[in-house]
Amino acid sequence: MSKSSLKIAIAGLGTVGGGTVQLLHDQAQLLAARAGRPLTLVGAAALEKPTGLPLDGVPFFTDARVMARDCDYDVLVELIGGAGGIALDVVRTALERGRSVVTANKAMIAHHGTELAQIAEAKGGTIGFEASVGGGIPIIKSLREGLAANRVTKVMGILNGTCNYILTTMRESGRDFADVLAEAQKLGYAEADPTFDIDGIDTAHKLAILVSLAFSAPIDLDGVSCEGIRHVSALDIRYADELGYRIKLLGVAAQTDTGIEARVYPAMVPLSFPLAHVSGPFNAIVTEGDFVGRTVLEGRGAGARPTASAVVADLMDLALGRTIPTFGVPVAALKAQPAAASGAHRSAYYIRLMVKDQPGVFADIAAALRDEQVSMEQVIQRGRAPEETVPVVMTVHETVESSMLRAVERLKALGSVADLQLIRIENL
Amino acid sequence: MSKSSLKIAIAGLGTVGGGTVQLLHDQAQLLAARAGRPLTLVGAAALEKPTGLPLDGVPFFTDARVMARDCDYDVLVELIGGAGGIALDVVRTALERGRSVVTANKAMIAHHGTELAQIAEAKGGTIGFEASVGGGIPIIKSLREGLAANRVTKVMGILNGTCNYILTTMRESGRDFADVLAEAQKLGYAEADPTFDIDGIDTAHKLAILVSLAFSAPIDLDGVSCEGIRHVSALDIRYADELGYRIKLLGVAAQTDTGIEARVYPAMVPLSFPLAHVSGPFNAIVTEGDFVGRTVLEGRGAGARPTASAVVADLMDLALGRTIPTFGVPVAALKAQPAAASGAHRSAYYIRLMVKDQPGVFADIAAALRDEQVSMEQVIQRGRAPEETVPVVMTVHETVESSMLRAVERLKALGSVADLQLIRIENL
Repeated sequence: MSKSSLKIAIAGLGTVGGGTVQLLHDQAQLLAARAGRPLTLVGAAALEKPTGLPLDGVPFFTDARVMARDCDYDVLVELIGGAGGIALDVVRTALERGRSVVTANKAMIAHHGTELAQIAEAKGGTIGFEASVGGGIPIIKSLREGLAANRVTKVMGILNGTCNYILTTMRESGRDFADVLAEAQKLGYAEADPTFDIDGIDTAHKLAILVSLAFSAPIDLDGVSCEGIRHVSALDIRYADELGYRIKLLGVAAQTDTGIEARVYPAMVPLSFPLAHVSGPFNAIVTEGDFVGRTVLEGRGAGARPTASAVVADLMDLALGRTIPTFGVPVAALKAQPAAASGAHRSAYYIRLMVKDQPGVFADIAAALRDEQVSMEQVIQRGRAPEETVPVVMTVHETVESSMLRAVERLKALGSVADLQLIRIENL
Repeated sequence: MSKSSLKIAIAGLGTVGGGTVQLLHDQAQLLAARAGRPLTLVGAAALEKPTGLPLDGVPFFTDARVMARDCDYDVLVELIGGAGGIALDVVRTALERGRSVVTANKAMIAHHGTELAQIAEAKGGTIGFEASVGGGIPIIKSLREGLAANRVTKVMGILNGTCNYILTTMRESGRDFADVLAEAQKLGYAEADPTFDIDGIDTAHKLAILVSLAFSAPIDLDGVSCEGIRHVSALDIRYADELGYRIKLLGVAAQTDTGIEARVYPAMVPLSFPLAHVSGPFNAIVTEGDFVGRTVLEGRGAGARPTASAVVADLMDLALGRTIPTFGVPVAALKAQPAAASGAHRSAYYIRLMVKDQPGVFADIAAALRDEQVSMEQVIQRGRAPEETVPVVMTVHETVESSMLRAVERLKALGSVADLQLIRIENL
């Protein structure tokens, strides 16, 4: 094995970049044995050179753009982050030079993936983005290669570790969202500006990538609807427990007769379903294929070491010359599909109403549901507090979303209903 | 895309062979789009030509050896089964001819994998065996490629759907082993001769393959110790439930300081652990890597369609020219390791004793455990039946296996102990 080394330039030396440098150093022998050639760092770029990383003898650049343009590498590893800016610049530069790119940048792939894949195809490079979804879980490889014999009908998952940590901690501690979020921020599990995570945007980026791979469609981030977890209360989590569910932020995509359905929302997941048991910082992805049936992949969804594992898996593929079109088929073969007809989705639901405890309230509620053909399954109403506000909780049988939403409008219009919370129940 | 087709000869047209022929037919367009070239059947062999399969125009052979020798194929798909015999003959012939092989045959890989990998390397072919472990789960690809940046420290799993079905059904119905096995045989979920499955041999084959991939060692089936599920009683399953466990037949392998530990045994799995929730015909594999941490892959472990999905995934890799040494590194780089020191394993245990209910029994039991430094955690003894035989159930804290086995000998020597059942508790 006297093959020449794979020359790697790394842009961004934060958490994931640092982890990747460390992995390439610690496992150098192992990687060389498996790849049949060494993996060698020929450049590293960051605004400031970090201390404590094994970067001795590696040319250092304070301007990643300069490195991308001038350095002699086979593959540029982009770990700067952000949909555009420097990250996008260096990736474009590398691809235009006919080099390959490995990235953990879900925002960039979700916003610009199709365009970048086109440049890669035209110039003879490839794009590896295993680290962009599910951290260390080899989900991109599984979808694109391991399940390549299947027509995928559904893909769904817990794709954001921050939200899963918050929801898990809320459940275990009984504390409320704001309180747990503040603690997660203090512990470094959530960003100072948590919007990306808790409003579901990060999950939407990842889902858009999975959708493209699963259904061979161009990336369509606008086609992903998005609802976060800010409104999930400790009360709902307690009721979920009582009803035999866990609340999880899910990204869910399905191929329907009318097009692709792609949504991010908090859902009640039954305990019999594998996703219910995925807790804390773990991620998991469920795929349904027409031959393979259901597969579930679970693992650490973030962090320096798991994400570095995914980055270097892509580098190993490149070192071995094992490549494939970015989204599984050439860009020209990706077929855009419309979004599935709105409101046609069928689902069971959990509804929590805060109502004034006065005579006739329940009859009004029942009538509102009946008038929209929504059929109740279970009801929990405990204690009485005449003239006070009390929770009424119910689950309803699978129903068409448009009916459910009309029923919700009727319920909100009732004078006795002070607040209403609607959460989908996910029965795969 | 005018590349020539990948020419496939398929030997064996039983369940998996039939499923594979069907998949290649049903998904022909999809596969060609993803592979950039058609996948074409150029030969099929079985003792008798089955009806109902889309084999029009495909040259048919009643002697697979003749097909392997004379037919002009790029890859031979071996789905005959059995460690040796015709299966091994046709695989050797194909590899000697410099062609590639795809197989679902775990027995053959477990017995002859290293030798076959050597022939493949010498002659320029490759061997794909994704379908040999975990049915449709892309576990081989994940271990060999997706987690290639990791030093794997542990791999364990539920690898036999028949055993998992039997154990799941025993738990759900409360019925005993023999009864559920008979039903499984009637339903076609278990073979007429169920030895391979229920005595853990099939699991041992699969574990031997995973061990080789995980620890870069030559296949060593003799290094896998093997205990089946015949002795698991309905009573133990009930107690497991009560104590918060599920009983699963596991294959467990770990890299230890003294060598490789590879064992098949029924174990109690805590409900907090993902494997506890893998039921019925599903398989799941847990991997621990030094960077990625824990990953779990779950899916259908057998059946025509899931297994065909894995067979064709290997064919897609070949069609795309995406290959890798059979066990992740060249055969010369595989390093044999001794079996881990016997008895050094540390584990918690469940013990069920059937004892004569007479004065002083419990003191004798407690003394036997104390004398071997085995420390009790929980004890369940219910009701009394003086002079009758009653169950005493306990769990003990993590202890060295050799101590536990000595304690078991002491317990068995007590006159009051009529029967003893020992089951490991698996806390990853």
